Amino acid sequence: MLRTLTPLFLFGLATLASTAQQNIWGHNPLRSPEVHPDGRVTFRLLAPKAQQVQLTGDFLPAEERTTAFGKMWVDGRRSLQRDTAGVWSFTTEQALAPELYQYAFHIDSLQVPDPSNVYRHRDTNLTTDVFLVGGGVEGQYAVNDVPHGSIVKQWYASPSLRATRRLSIYLPPHYFEQSHRRFPVLYLLHGMGGDEEAWLAMGRAAQIFDNLIATGRMTPAIVVLPNGNVSQQAAPGEGSNGFVPPQSMLPRTMNGEYEAAFPDIVRFVDRHFRTLPKAKHRAIAGLSMGGFHSLHTAINHPTLFHYVGLFSAAIQPREDNVSPIYADVPTKLSRLYAHRPSLFYIAIGRDDFLFKDNVRFRQQLDQLQLPYTYRETDGGHTWRNWRRYLLDFLPRLFRP
Amino acid sequence: MLRTLTPLFLFGLATLASTAQQNIWGHNPLRSPEVHPDGRVTFRLLAPKAQQVQLTGDFLPAEERTTAFGKMWVDGRRSLQRDTAGVWSFTTEQALAPELYQYAFHIDSLQVPDPSNVYRHRDTNLTTDVFLVGGGVEGQYAVNDVPHGSIVKQWYASPSLRATRRLSIYLPPHYFEQSHRRFPVLYLLHGMGGDEEAWLAMGRAAQIFDNLIATGRMTPAIVVLPNGNVSQQAAPGEGSNGFVPPQSMLPRTMNGEYEAAFPDIVRFVDRHFRTLPKAKHRAIAGLSMGGFHSLHTAINHPTLFHYVGLFSAAIQPREDNVSPIYADVPTKLSRLYAHRPSLFYIAIGRDDFLFKDNVRFRQQLDQLQLPYTYRETDGGHTWRNWRRYLLDFLPRLFRP
Repeated sequence: MLRTLTPLFLFGLATLASTAQQNIWGHNPLRSPEVHPDGRVTFRLLAPKAQQVQLTGDFLPAEERTTAFGKMWVDGRRSLQRDTAGVWSFTTEQALAPELYQYAFHIDSLQVPDPSNVYRHRDTNLTTDVFLVGGGVEGQYAVNDVPHGSIVKQWYASPSLRATRRLSIYLPPHYFEQSHRRFPVLYLLHGMGGDEEAWLAMGRAAQIFDNLIATGRMTPAIVVLPNGNVSQQAAPGEGSNGFVPPQSMLPRTMNGEYEAAFPDIVRFVDRHFRTLPKAKHRAIAGLSMGGFHSLHTAINHPTLFHYVGLFSAAIQPREDNVSPIYADVPTKLSRLYAHRPSLFYIAIGRDDFLFKDNVRFRQQLDQLQLPYTYRETDGGHTWRNWRRYLLDFLPRLFRP
Repeated sequence: MLRTLTPLFLFGLATLASTAQQNIWGHNPLRSPEVHPDGRVTFRLLAPKAQQVQLTGDFLPAEERTTAFGKMWVDGRRSLQRDTAGVWSFTTEQALAPELYQYAFHIDSLQVPDPSNVYRHRDTNLTTDVFLVGGGVEGQYAVNDVPHGSIVKQWYASPSLRATRRLSIYLPPHYFEQSHRRFPVLYLLHGMGGDEEAWLAMGRAAQIFDNLIATGRMTPAIVVLPNGNVSQQAAPGEGSNGFVPPQSMLPRTMNGEYEAAFPDIVRFVDRHFRTLPKAKHRAIAGLSMGGFHSLHTAINHPTLFHYVGLFSAAIQPREDNVSPIYADVPTKLSRLYAHRPSLFYIAIGRDDFLFKDNVRFRQQLDQLQLPYTYRETDGGHTWRNWRRYLLDFLPRLFRP
């Protein structure tokens, strides 16, 4: 029958049949977003009956708005123009710099995903439409013609947490060929509302590893991307609680349990993958809550890691927290430094709501006369910054 | 600062700040879909200014509609009711049977994804909202408390196609522990518009493998999920062409190149993973175009596979196709059967648009006196059927 199907018939099938038969030939006739060769981007939405269609996105200049909570920066907003067919569109005034961007449509004030865009990632407990301009920063977010690592979705047993949990692992190119070579390991942690998928989706981490390894800017390494939510077995939909709405304010994320149980992960990885199982070949880094986890894991297990990276890190435990994991931070910091870590890296944006906490933390390090590498950028608590920090951090690891 | 944030402030941040800071604490206040304990399901959408909100889904009775193309079955449709706050809702009249379902909202005739649901899979070149009732058929689509296999996203070189391409691999539970055990291999192929992600997303394949292996209904096996689109390096967004709109009518999908190059995949897998590298430990199966690929790969390489599965398979090449791969099918079939395959399995639904082609193909097998196992079901060309065929097919593989 396939041979007898005409394009017109196929279009009919596509628009009518929906899921009664699989919609093999369907497609959304509008292209949105469309990145033009000159770097401008057009967004389109078919909505003949809408009164107003607007767009927000992290590429539009943020606007300061005064609210009941004080002044805050919010995404810029633009109106789309309607044509006679009911197609609304907007083209950016200027070319957008190479980057991974996020946006949303607002139809009569209702925020909706772009029906024409299949590139939609979960970011915390919401989904966001994304598009890539020009391969991202220095082309490092694109899949380039370089050797590619493998991504493994792997379950592990955590005896300390009495749980079976999931993590993601990046194995460097040729891992399954070079059956004896061992690699250093970076543990790379997500933030609040994230999970073992976050760095791979919004972070473009696999592409960044492939590209930096190919150009010699990163030492080939295994990268472990664990799930930092103790109450959660795996990313939403991947655990036994099924398709429940994800939550970002999960319990047991910053109460010390995760940091205390972290050696379970290291033991599992060292036992099942070809690692170099020594501190000098191990790094831990994370963003936001993952920076908090990295800091407190590293200082509570001072012989495990020789490299520490804090990206827009939360520093202070919540007031109600009484775990001994968060006690005696200055003493524990000094104990970590007694092992002469190769790198203690801090990066944050000046607009980040955790900026002042990081200033105070650096003052504490200064008073203790503990050296660190510091990178301050513009921008706030965003994936754009975390991808850039990762690009900056990786070349500093595992150098002899 | 985290410790000073009040819930009210967090809500303010969530609704206003969007991507100017990462929306850590945001959530969509509506729950949709909500599967009630009694199996009924409620859908909700906030759209105060909409005139009409409707729902289509594969759980609503399909409706026969007369169109310019003749009569065809389309998904059922229901209207949602608006409350005074502008929230539209609909609850199914009856409990839904355990299954993975698809649905979409239609706001004033515009089909839009459900903003409250993060479980949205790409199915061909569109995305569809999904929800799971009761763990799916016999609970086999859920992540249950059983040993879990690993999923690997792996690149391989195809010398025949002069391309570096991606595939997915399921490694059975304990693969990385039992470092010497070897496994049989199933090659499981997607349909038109699909790719190496399709069986794992819409097919719930990893959950099905885990659950059937745990109960002894499937022999532990490696399952390879290749990408069958020769012109495509990898799934959309995972290849070097970037975030372009996916196409289902790709060139070079049914012109013989893929079947001719298939031994490249088998060689790669046998070389890099612990397989039992003999025909009697190898199966190939696929849905729709993947059934077509399975059939023509198996009969053109008659010493490679001892098990063949055709799920809603396309049988006939397109009229314009002149590849020798599709010539002399009866002779090649007899040659395959000369090697006494353990299983030649055909499954299809009575409403499938490929049903008649499968009737003719079975007549051909009958005339040639070649035995096969046949399963005929209700329903059409749908993932619901393909998951059921997989559940029925796997227990028949790799039995001594």
